[in-house]
Amino acid sequence: MVTSTPATNRDVRIAILGCGHVGSALVGILTQRSDALAVQAGARLVIGGIAVSDLSRPRADDVDTALLTDDAASLVTDPSIDVVVELMGGLEPAGALIRDALAAGKPVITANKALLASPTGVELRHLADRQGVDLLYEAAVAGAIPLVRALRESLTGERIQRVMGIVNGTTNFILTQMSELGADYGAVLAEAQILGLAERDPTADVEGHDAAAKAAILAGVAFGYDVSMDEVMCEGISKIGAADVEFARRSGYVIKLLAVVERAEGDALSVRVHPALVPDDHPLAGVRDSFNAVFIEGEAAGELMLYGRGAGGLPTASAVVGDVIDATRNLLAHTSAPTPDRQPARLLDPSDLVTRYYLSVTVADQAGVLAEVAAVFGAHGVSIRSMEQVGDVGDARLLFLTHAAREGDVQATLADLAALEPVLSVSGLLRMVGEAS
Amino acid sequence: MVTSTPATNRDVRIAILGCGHVGSALVGILTQRSDALAVQAGARLVIGGIAVSDLSRPRADDVDTALLTDDAASLVTDPSIDVVVELMGGLEPAGALIRDALAAGKPVITANKALLASPTGVELRHLADRQGVDLLYEAAVAGAIPLVRALRESLTGERIQRVMGIVNGTTNFILTQMSELGADYGAVLAEAQILGLAERDPTADVEGHDAAAKAAILAGVAFGYDVSMDEVMCEGISKIGAADVEFARRSGYVIKLLAVVERAEGDALSVRVHPALVPDDHPLAGVRDSFNAVFIEGEAAGELMLYGRGAGGLPTASAVVGDVIDATRNLLAHTSAPTPDRQPARLLDPSDLVTRYYLSVTVADQAGVLAEVAAVFGAHGVSIRSMEQVGDVGDARLLFLTHAAREGDVQATLADLAALEPVLSVSGLLRMVGEAS
Repeated sequence: MVTSTPATNRDVRIAILGCGHVGSALVGILTQRSDALAVQAGARLVIGGIAVSDLSRPRADDVDTALLTDDAASLVTDPSIDVVVELMGGLEPAGALIRDALAAGKPVITANKALLASPTGVELRHLADRQGVDLLYEAAVAGAIPLVRALRESLTGERIQRVMGIVNGTTNFILTQMSELGADYGAVLAEAQILGLAERDPTADVEGHDAAAKAAILAGVAFGYDVSMDEVMCEGISKIGAADVEFARRSGYVIKLLAVVERAEGDALSVRVHPALVPDDHPLAGVRDSFNAVFIEGEAAGELMLYGRGAGGLPTASAVVGDVIDATRNLLAHTSAPTPDRQPARLLDPSDLVTRYYLSVTVADQAGVLAEVAAVFGAHGVSIRSMEQVGDVGDARLLFLTHAAREGDVQATLADLAALEPVLSVSGLLRMVGEAS
Repeated sequence: MVTSTPATNRDVRIAILGCGHVGSALVGILTQRSDALAVQAGARLVIGGIAVSDLSRPRADDVDTALLTDDAASLVTDPSIDVVVELMGGLEPAGALIRDALAAGKPVITANKALLASPTGVELRHLADRQGVDLLYEAAVAGAIPLVRALRESLTGERIQRVMGIVNGTTNFILTQMSELGADYGAVLAEAQILGLAERDPTADVEGHDAAAKAAILAGVAFGYDVSMDEVMCEGISKIGAADVEFARRSGYVIKLLAVVERAEGDALSVRVHPALVPDDHPLAGVRDSFNAVFIEGEAAGELMLYGRGAGGLPTASAVVGDVIDATRNLLAHTSAPTPDRQPARLLDPSDLVTRYYLSVTVADQAGVLAEVAAVFGAHGVSIRSMEQVGDVGDARLLFLTHAAREGDVQATLADLAALEPVLSVSGLLRMVGEAS
């Protein structure tokens, strides 16, 4: 499409650390769209080196093997390198390499969500601020979706109330299948593993750890709070049963695993990941399969949602390319991208969260059970909005929706319920979001 | 939220031209969030003057009447003014004022879609490019949705295939009500007028002119083509009947008014606005009421959608504030925002558009009619995918879905059908988008 000459004859030399799916896709885009990118960036983007752990592994056609090195540390500090792209993943040596690059005044682009959500990530963002050099990570949250830049630039003047997102494709695929096919968690997970949509060890996805890292990063971008993923309240989807999904469907909800960052009372920030009941007519409810979406509520902008591919080599590389161009333009203009004004976090104690709840309690079906159960709710000040009994005699499930209640009171209710003699199990606890209250 | 001192003591003085809903909301945000914005912009944003046409009209509390002037031309060229925000609307004098500001090297932010989509708008964008000064217009398309910046910056390295959006809230409200309540166009329009969601003269909205201006702007931002709104193929929603909506619903579609910009064969660009059948499971299908959304298909990024409030004082002002901060940062760094590499457009001749169609033909219900009608389709090479007959004896409607066909052939089919003796009217023609083909 673009045929004119680059605005400058200067080359900007890029080091790429890691050459897996995303790295290979990045090399492909930089190679095949070289002329167009030069016009946008204001300089020709030249790959100065690619650091890999195994020099002997076969590489994609676009990858010039003469550029490969297994000495990432020397590549990063090579004076001919202007910009560093870190795609190797993991905490170290990625953290040390990024630190070296930033210390040398070189902009860094990374897709490493685990690192960014670690204490090292917080330290690296502060280092970048002090150095006045770009540390960009559009690809670390929600892949190709231009979320980080939207929050950092378009909405920079906005007082944001809440950001909540479907930021893990694997779990959204599983929940979509459970909802649309009425299938069981285990069966859908097995299918996702066969399709390559879930890892052999799916823990990081299904227990919400991946989403928690993204929630921590979003707290920084949208609210200027430094949060590490260990501080994020986190529940996964592995305990959700077909009965929960079916109840939600009948009641006008879908179950989604959400990363939520929101202002609570007294400007404390609630940062959490958990499955939630989302009303059918909420924009997040229609996000199916492995797509991601992030819903943003701002004081002036109102409700916004950004939707797209959250993972995959090409979509992730597309986000990296946007950041490379940004970093290059800033480098040539001797400036850097805006960063949120950082503040030490005052995180909301999870037990102080106030929301509505869905609870599922399995009881021996005998006279007087409901009265006993209801008394426990009442004792903790948890008000019941609706109750439904499903199942056969001898093994009934009581499904409750509550009015807004404190998490601590609901947890105390659960503990007391579990101790009641006719209660066989407390099998489900889901929070509700996105409703007019 | 933000308490630290601004990064610089410099003031950046802003002239605001126009003080209606958006202008008042902008003054409110600039006044109430002054400290936070100063941190983001790198300078204190000071309102240097507000140009209005009627000095005597009452103003919102935030508006300092000492800043008001009815001499916009002098305000723009006042050497103390650094940045100009044009919110007066209309082609002139807005065009001349923006020209003067750009010529003086002052960045301009505007929400004026009609101007941007006019030949003057094209000229002003070129002038800004030559001057190396920002002309920013996030608020001109889809209000608070960070669409322009996403296309201009995040997706700048992306080869975009298609952009299609619901960019007019009034028509989306009308179509949503028609679809969900089974109501008639006229009744819903009257309700929208009572609710203030449609103008007394609704022509610009319901005939697609407002959407056409936005399509023209999107062609520039996403594809680097200069298109003015007169060049946009444009059809509105005023001829859509309850029967069309009902057929769509039964067949698994909703009707949406879409602005579409897409690459056609030979790198020609199709830029058009028309109602379209969108499959129920397409993300655009779930965009209800007066919300806007834009769906983007990129070569590497895949499918993206951005959703939010397309109009209203505060959401529009929110987008303007993002641009003001951007322009201020660029001004302080002596740089300007990236612009697409401009190319003269080769627009696709509308008759060369290839897509699928829905047609509704009302016939006298007599033997042999269907054969006659089908023969006309066949004569023009338009292949029928499905047909359904609805209605009573004597006044039957034949509803057709076609396979992919050339617009010119479909129009010729319509003309020949209208000339058939048993054909009472050809009452509906809708294009289909968003399906796997």
